[in-house]
Amino acid sequence: MNAPAAGPGSRRVIIALGGNAAYPPTIKGTAEEQLDVMAALCEHFVRMIDAGYRLILTHGNGPVVGNILFRMARTARELPPMPMDVCVAHSQGGMGYMLEQSFTNVLRKRGRQARVAAVLTEVEVDADDPAFNNPTKPVGKFFSATEAAEMQAETGWVFREDSGRGWRRVVPSPQPRQILDLHAIEALLAADIIPIAAGGGGIPVIRDADGCHHGVPAVIDKDLTSAMLAAQTGAQAFIMITGVEQVMLDFGKPGARAVARMSASEARRHLADGQFPPGSMGPKIEAALNYLDAFDGTVVITSLERAFDALEGRAGTRIVRDA
Amino acid sequence: MNAPAAGPGSRRVIIALGGNAAYPPTIKGTAEEQLDVMAALCEHFVRMIDAGYRLILTHGNGPVVGNILFRMARTARELPPMPMDVCVAHSQGGMGYMLEQSFTNVLRKRGRQARVAAVLTEVEVDADDPAFNNPTKPVGKFFSATEAAEMQAETGWVFREDSGRGWRRVVPSPQPRQILDLHAIEALLAADIIPIAAGGGGIPVIRDADGCHHGVPAVIDKDLTSAMLAAQTGAQAFIMITGVEQVMLDFGKPGARAVARMSASEARRHLADGQFPPGSMGPKIEAALNYLDAFDGTVVITSLERAFDALEGRAGTRIVRDA
Repeated sequence: MNAPAAGPGSRRVIIALGGNAAYPPTIKGTAEEQLDVMAALCEHFVRMIDAGYRLILTHGNGPVVGNILFRMARTARELPPMPMDVCVAHSQGGMGYMLEQSFTNVLRKRGRQARVAAVLTEVEVDADDPAFNNPTKPVGKFFSATEAAEMQAETGWVFREDSGRGWRRVVPSPQPRQILDLHAIEALLAADIIPIAAGGGGIPVIRDADGCHHGVPAVIDKDLTSAMLAAQTGAQAFIMITGVEQVMLDFGKPGARAVARMSASEARRHLADGQFPPGSMGPKIEAALNYLDAFDGTVVITSLERAFDALEGRAGTRIVRDA
Repeated sequence: MNAPAAGPGSRRVIIALGGNAAYPPTIKGTAEEQLDVMAALCEHFVRMIDAGYRLILTHGNGPVVGNILFRMARTARELPPMPMDVCVAHSQGGMGYMLEQSFTNVLRKRGRQARVAAVLTEVEVDADDPAFNNPTKPVGKFFSATEAAEMQAETGWVFREDSGRGWRRVVPSPQPRQILDLHAIEALLAADIIPIAAGGGGIPVIRDADGCHHGVPAVIDKDLTSAMLAAQTGAQAFIMITGVEQVMLDFGKPGARAVARMSASEARRHLADGQFPPGSMGPKIEAALNYLDAFDGTVVITSLERAFDALEGRAGTRIVRDA
């Protein structure tokens, strides 16, 4: 067991939830279903609070922002559609609210006193990030080839075929450069409130020559933003929740094996060797390395069910700085 | 000139912006237009900051939440529509983001250092509030009688004819009972951050027997919620921005006159006498009286252009406790 060291801020933990964790492909997508999923999910955090960890929650928004963009496009002849940055803000509003309510209700049912609040988070990206010319991030639901072609003709959206499951819209996913609302997140932490922040990777904005910010059409990777937030808030642990309990090496090959612990340099080598696919584990390993470059903490990649045990060093995959 | 007394928190000011102030009926409703309107609006707050006032911004959401609800209904066959509470949360996300960005950009251009952040705000209402059986709050755009009848048949929405300008959807508007995110707003204030809070009057929720909260289909009056927030944060002044510079008595009659100053009991008497129409000035006077019942501060009702002068006692209508 690797209990975190004592000291101010040393028990801060960032938990990054995938967009699919809060909106799995198995649901139709009603608010009731989403709230049920979130309540089940938040039950896992109660033990962490009891063990003295101070949490910060971040979350993806892929399915939800896709739905919001779809509604904007479908009604564009009747109402001006909001641009993608505003749609990400809508998703922070809706998901932040539902997560705050679910978590608060779980805490109340369990007799815990902790408070939760959701703060809107803008994140600066570079205007010349190459991602703007190469959309890769899938958002929203799956379409048939015919539907996708129709939507493309109507809206100009870019679609990609996704592993035989259908066609999905893809949008640019630039690198996060600065979390503009860091002070608000710190203010909540200082008041002993659990922040829900950086939803959907943050609302993407660029900075102009005057230092003013303006929205851009993109969805930032939530793990990369979470890594930055973890380092900048001095969170001693950074947990990325995913569908598997441990990171695998040689996945799908004869020598396939789960990894309990990796150093940063081992992770970097495996990443360079193509062990981690670009669309799934790859960005998580990149996020882990970014965090470890900036801060001497522990990264945990695991499933929701094992998150507490992994945090305590008994499960999941841990990635740490080189000794 | 009535400068506020010195002392801790004594220069806190809540500014309640109408939904129409940020989304006037003269615009088509694009994000660009909304951002332009908001930037112009935020210019008026710079002088207040320079004079040492510590601001809290609240805002209505009528036009915006109406648009969001409309998009949900129009795409209901393709995607599960989110309920009204989640739509209010979306509006807090979108409007909070655009206000934060506009205000921050104005402050940067003017060389000021102040920080702004938007926090999601849930507001508890009573499950048995009679408003749930009598929808009165108009949201969204105007429809023709035919369009309204079609939407009504399709969605079950209630429509009312609005002063000869067309038909608008009306929704229940229950009384606010408790601001659930007050601690988060206080945390931002403690960190010297200007909060944008209680957007659209707050996300409406009711409390069940276990103390858990659940969303309800309603839009709370933003002035009533702002009054509660002003009293509970100890804001020494509560400004309601409206389309006119001063409150009028005997409006449209021969003896019509503007009011520079009223006591609470005068305001209460005029309200009882039917001087203030239910849909416009009435709720503002009610909000003023609620605030003055709970807190010994000053209420100001005025236009955006005169807000600073009114705060300093040189314009607008001031309402104060009975001597």
